[in-house]
Amino acid sequence: MAADTSRSIKAVCVVHNETSTGVTSRVADVRRAIDAAGHPALLLVDTISSLGSIDYRHDEWGVDVTVAGSQKGLMLPPGLSFNAVSAKALDASRTAALPKSFWDWKPIIEANKNGFFPYTPATNLLYGLEESLRMLEAEGLPAVFARHARHAEATRAAVRAWGLEVLCADEREYSGSLTAVLMPEGHDADKVREIILERFDMSLGTGLGRLAGRVFRIGHLGHFNDLTLAGTLAGVQMGLQLAGTPIDPVGLNAALDVLRRG
Amino acid sequence: MAADTSRSIKAVCVVHNETSTGVTSRVADVRRAIDAAGHPALLLVDTISSLGSIDYRHDEWGVDVTVAGSQKGLMLPPGLSFNAVSAKALDASRTAALPKSFWDWKPIIEANKNGFFPYTPATNLLYGLEESLRMLEAEGLPAVFARHARHAEATRAAVRAWGLEVLCADEREYSGSLTAVLMPEGHDADKVREIILERFDMSLGTGLGRLAGRVFRIGHLGHFNDLTLAGTLAGVQMGLQLAGTPIDPVGLNAALDVLRRG
Amino acid sequence: MAADTSRSIKAVCVVHNETSTGVTSRVADVRRAIDAAGHPALLLVDTISSLGSIDYRHDEWGVDVTVAGSQKGLMLPPGLSFNAVSAKALDASRTAALPKSFWDWKPIIEANKNGFFPYTPATNLLYGLEESLRMLEAEGLPAVFARHARHAEATRAAVRAWGLEVLCADEREYSGSLTAVLMPEGHDADKVREIILERFDMSLGTGLGRLAGRVFRIGHLGHFNDLTLAGTLAGVQMGLQLAGTPIDPVGLNAALDVLRRG
Amino acid sequence: MAADTSRSIKAVCVVHNETSTGVTSRVADVRRAIDAAGHPALLLVDTISSLGSIDYRHDEWGVDVTVAGSQKGLMLPPGLSFNAVSAKALDASRTAALPKSFWDWKPIIEANKNGFFPYTPATNLLYGLEESLRMLEAEGLPAVFARHARHAEATRAAVRAWGLEVLCADEREYSGSLTAVLMPEGHDADKVREIILERFDMSLGTGLGRLAGRVFRIGHLGHFNDLTLAGTLAGVQMGLQLAGTPIDPVGLNAALDVLRRG
Repeated sequence: MAADTSRSIKAVCVVHNETSTGVTSRVADVRRAIDAAGHPALLLVDTISSLGSIDYRHDEWGVDVTVAGSQKGLMLPPGLSFNAVSAKALDASRTAALPKSFWDWKPIIEANKNGFFPYTPATNLLYGLEESLRMLEAEGLPAVFARHARHAEATRAAVRAWGLEVLCADEREYSGSLTAVLMPEGHDADKVREIILERFDMSLGTGLGRLAGRVFRIGHLGHFNDLTLAGTLAGVQMGLQLAGTPIDPVGLNAALDVLRRG
Repeated sequence: MAADTSRSIKAVCVVHNETSTGVTSRVADVRRAIDAAGHPALLLVDTISSLGSIDYRHDEWGVDVTVAGSQKGLMLPPGLSFNAVSAKALDASRTAALPKSFWDWKPIIEANKNGFFPYTPATNLLYGLEESLRMLEAEGLPAVFARHARHAEATRAAVRAWGLEVLCADEREYSGSLTAVLMPEGHDADKVREIILERFDMSLGTGLGRLAGRVFRIGHLGHFNDLTLAGTLAGVQMGLQLAGTPIDPVGLNAALDVLRRG
Repeated sequence: MAADTSRSIKAVCVVHNETSTGVTSRVADVRRAIDAAGHPALLLVDTISSLGSIDYRHDEWGVDVTVAGSQKGLMLPPGLSFNAVSAKALDASRTAALPKSFWDWKPIIEANKNGFFPYTPATNLLYGLEESLRMLEAEGLPAVFARHARHAEATRAAVRAWGLEVLCADEREYSGSLTAVLMPEGHDADKVREIILERFDMSLGTGLGRLAGRVFRIGHLGHFNDLTLAGTLAGVQMGLQLAGTPIDPVGLNAALDVLRRG
Repeated sequence: MAADTSRSIKAVCVVHNETSTGVTSRVADVRRAIDAAGHPALLLVDTISSLGSIDYRHDEWGVDVTVAGSQKGLMLPPGLSFNAVSAKALDASRTAALPKSFWDWKPIIEANKNGFFPYTPATNLLYGLEESLRMLEAEGLPAVFARHARHAEATRAAVRAWGLEVLCADEREYSGSLTAVLMPEGHDADKVREIILERFDMSLGTGLGRLAGRVFRIGHLGHFNDLTLAGTLAGVQMGLQLAGTPIDPVGLNAALDVLRRG
């Protein structure tokens, strides 16, 4: 940022929880870095797979635009998305010369003032949202985040006890939503996924881009409890064995050791 | 039966799958014993917790009255029950002097001939029944029974590997629907159940009568797959440990060994 | 009752709202008549098609046993029924020599004390009941009863304006739940019902017993508002005309005159 | 179009069923006019409130882009929209220099080839769509269109018998989906709408722009039958009277005369 003396960078875009790798970004640190460079760039954050699962602070961390969706931590079907927008981002939007229509905030901000939408909204998902927010508040956000963190910790314990590697290398960036697992050389992650889908009716995430075939991803977010996680990890352990991956089948028990602690 | 020379016994009542103990009755053998004694008693069988989960043959086994319900193997909410009735039972009912009203078959047999009920039926459950029968047929009854038997076998493998005892002593009478587990002397089954409910939101069956406090019961019937069972057994294993029961925590893995075989 | 000097009558059974005729019973008057005769008979009342639609007072009217169901004014699918029982009825039940099993109150009263049932209850309907009671309380019972009475009055206005007769002859006994309509001589009520079902997908009640073919019944209870009633009466008016019944087609408007008053 | 010798017009945009006025466009005629002028403009048609309710022919009428949504004739909640695109429109899109992202067809056409989406689709609405298409096919599209046309005719009969005016002046352009009604001078359409909402829990469309306060709109599309329409028109008739609009209350019966013909 400091090198950008011409201020050609208009915005820094960060994914809070990187779904393809199970790595989170330290958003507050990114903000501090931008500020330390005295750079006016906006900070835009994608929280699709973190909102409602991993602690996130739009205002406190100085984020300008937060993007979220209904289909992960909010436990709803896909079909709603959300923007939180800072005053600075609004100003930038007003003066920006970029053509925009669908992505224009102005009409929805105007209409929402009176409780309306500038288009026909996905009404039934709004009813669902009311209920999922009630559920999150009933459990309490700190408890919700702690539950996800605990499940992620138990999952990593399983992975390591199997003798496999968690893709995320920096413990400050572990994801509470999902864990990506590296396969040993010469073993195909997609084969494991295929066996698990076929035999146990469970669909795991695939590796994307450079990671294709090398990792599979275990999701543990949203409406999820200790026994759902145990069932999930049991399926992974059996699938790895059926695929001939050399693992030590003590992974599931290692996860239970974490879960049992509460 | 042979000793009942005065034929004072009118009917032999058998529970196909004894829910409080996880023991099945060999119904065909019971029929053969009655017939061997040349006794005219009716054979009445309760299949509440077996129908749709454990192989059962009303006609082939010479049962006179079969009683079933919607809320177990048929995977529906409670609210429907069913009777299958032999010609011999119908005759007995017609000539019986016992007062009966609610339990009288005549009105429903009459009304059903034209597709009606002699009272207002639980309509929405009939729609549900149509769907659950479609699901059972899609999987195929032999596959459904094999799935339950496999889950029961995996459960027993877990119990034994924990160092505990399955209540059912005769392997010809193992239940595909549920498994009752005997606690070691001095350990309270209800304490284990309480911890599991509290910590893992899973409700296990209690011991009844003489078995109160000595057994808990693991259900594995209906809409249930390998990973649901793994999650269930993980909860039991953790609950036993949390309650201080002396077990070897290799039970879950022993179950997975069975499940992995397919 | 006075003539029964031997007290051989044990109970007086009354249907609060007679579904086949649309006539209500003046239950409080029946109680007064029994009491006036100094007779100890129990008063049993069937409120299947009145509870939640027509004002009813178990305690105030001195009823001993009230029977109700979920599928009418409580707006639920069929599958639950209810008994309200006086101390006197309980005493009678305890000392009665009549054989009873399904109809025996003792086990359920015992179990309900601790929030349990002596059998597997229709759980999902209990959740539904919680919601329907919430709806009735939100509208307020007096408003609910007034709505039904108004709809019944509008229906009678339509019937009379058509030139037809309401079966119920005594205005103190008009039903708020349904109205039975007498067809003119030589016109078949079931033909009208058949046409309305076929053409407008609306099923009206048939005449029963002596009234078969002579009356049809218009239900207006439960989850029902002014426009549902207007649509209902429009279907009846068109059906009568299509069946060739000689009517004056001002009936629907006569009903609207009542509804418009509020 | 003929006057546009410089071909500066790139596309002609037409709303098939104009929701704010209840007027349909003769799309095939528009196409013929464009072609007669030898003009290469694309023909873009909005069928939001007509698809599945009013006959429409993307290919036969030579439309280049058809836009539709789930929430009207397809009887689903809002949340899905559809584009049908001609080869000519695709070509134009490929070579167009206009910036586009959300509105770009390329990613979805690519992904759909293999049954995928370039984003997370509103899965539950796709299940709903499967069912609503099944319903439309079961009734048969010609029958569906005829039903809507009949309901529209009955509605116009009511409006005229009330002594009011249908906004659409050209009978070739009557809408099968909705009917806009002109209020007499000095009478406020929004007051009528407010009374009907308050008293009968029915929400009518408001007049937009120049028509604000002068018209209200009666929707009659989607999952709708003769008695729903009768209830709807009964509410309108009562609302008009309660608002003091001078009408002849024979409108509802005039509609029934149309409906009764079948």
